[in-house]
Amino acid sequence: MSKTVGILGGMGPLATVDLFAKIVENTPAVLDQDHLRIIIDNNPQVPPRVEAIMQNGESPLPALVASAKLLAAAGADFIVMPCNTAHYWLAEMQAAVTIPIYSMIDNAAAYMAEHHRHLSGRLLLTATEATINLELYQQAFARHGMSLRLPDPDDRKIIDKAVRRVKAGELATNPYLGDINAMLARQAAEGTAAVFAGCTEMPLLFPYFTVPLERFDATLLLARMAVARARSEG
Amino acid sequence: MSKTVGILGGMGPLATVDLFAKIVENTPAVLDQDHLRIIIDNNPQVPPRVEAIMQNGESPLPALVASAKLLAAAGADFIVMPCNTAHYWLAEMQAAVTIPIYSMIDNAAAYMAEHHRHLSGRLLLTATEATINLELYQQAFARHGMSLRLPDPDDRKIIDKAVRRVKAGELATNPYLGDINAMLARQAAEGTAAVFAGCTEMPLLFPYFTVPLERFDATLLLARMAVARARSEG
Repeated sequence: MSKTVGILGGMGPLATVDLFAKIVENTPAVLDQDHLRIIIDNNPQVPPRVEAIMQNGESPLPALVASAKLLAAAGADFIVMPCNTAHYWLAEMQAAVTIPIYSMIDNAAAYMAEHHRHLSGRLLLTATEATINLELYQQAFARHGMSLRLPDPDDRKIIDKAVRRVKAGELATNPYLGDINAMLARQAAEGTAAVFAGCTEMPLLFPYFTVPLERFDATLLLARMAVARARSEG
Repeated sequence: MSKTVGILGGMGPLATVDLFAKIVENTPAVLDQDHLRIIIDNNPQVPPRVEAIMQNGESPLPALVASAKLLAAAGADFIVMPCNTAHYWLAEMQAAVTIPIYSMIDNAAAYMAEHHRHLSGRLLLTATEATINLELYQQAFARHGMSLRLPDPDDRKIIDKAVRRVKAGELATNPYLGDINAMLARQAAEGTAAVFAGCTEMPLLFPYFTVPLERFDATLLLARMAVARARSEG
C-alpha cells in the first residue's frame, strides 16, 4: 500500500498544478489504481511570502500551519510544498505536525550534488529575490560542497516581475521573457553552464527559454522524490 | 470571500490535473490571493467504475462517499467530480454529505442546450461504453430537448481502449489515435458537426485530433461552473 502524498499548495496555483502533474507523470502506472493518493490543499489565501520577508508583511506561518494540519487530518502521510520561498518557515511548520514535511530545497541540493557536482560554480539560481536574500539555496548547496551563481541585482528584479506575471497566468505572453532570455544569453557568455529553477513558477517558463542552457527544476526533483517516498516501504 | 472548491478526483489522475488546471486558468486573477481555495482528494484507489457497471465488479460507492466526506470535513463548500462514469452514483453520494455535489453531466447538458442547441442530432458523444450504456448523457440532453449521436459499437470499444491508455499516461503516443481520427472522419462525412467529450480522459486527446470538427469538453464546462459557483454570493 503506497503512502498518501500531501501537497501544501496554492503558492501559486499554477505551480501546484505543475507539481501534481509531475507526480502523476512520474508514477509508474497502467491503471488508475496504480497511481498515488494525493491530497492537495491549494490555498492561495496564504499571505504573500515575498512581501512578508522583504517588507515585513503579515506572516504566512499561521496559514501554513493550518494547511499542514488540514492535510495531516485528511490522511496525508507526508507533506511537500511547491513554493521555495515558503520553505523559510519549514522548521516552524514541522514543529506543528507529526507527519514529515520534506524540503524541496534540501532534496534538490542533495540530488544536484550526487548527479551534477561538476556544475558547481557554473549553475545559475533563478529564484525570487526573497529566496536569494535568505540564502535558502546557497546554504543548502554549500552543505553539499557546491556553489551557485546568482543573478545580477537588476536581473533579480526582472525574475520577480516575471514570477508575478506567471501567478497571473501569463506564460507564453509573459512580458519579461525577452529580458530573461537576454539574461540567460549574458550568463551563458560568462560561463554559466546550466539554469536551476529555485522558484516553482520558473519551470513554467522553460518552454519559452531560447538560450540552449541545460535546465534543472526543483519541482520535478520534488515530484520524483515524492513518488519514491510514497512507494517506499516503511 | 470565495467558496472552497472540493475536487473528488483520481479517476483518473491526469483528468484531475486537467480539471484543476482549467479551474486555475479560468479564474480571473492577478495575485495568488485572487485565486480559489481548492481541496483535492486524488484517490485513484476507488474501485474501477466501468468494471463495476459492465462486469458487476466491486462497487466504488463506499470509496466515493468516504472521499466526499473527507472533502466536506476539510472545508470544501461544494464538490465536483472529474469522472463522468462515477456520476452514476451521484445521488447516493449526495445523500451522504450535506454540501452540494454539482453534476458535470447536468451542467454540460444545460450549457449545450443554452448555447449550442442547433447542434442537436449532430453532436457525437465520446464516452466510455459504461457511460453510454447507462445513458447518463443521452438522458441529460433529452431533458433539455436535445439528442446526441452515439459512436458505432466497434468505435465504443476503441474509445474505451484509448481511455485506458490515457490513464496509463499515453497521450501523443496513444496507440488508438489513428482509429479515433478515422472514426471522426467517418462521422464528419455522415453529418456529425461536433464532438462532445463525455469522458474526462477525452479532452487530453483533443490536441491530437486531426479532423476539423468543433470540440466540446465537459471538464472545461465544469471548471467554468466551479469558478462561477465559488465566486458567487450565497
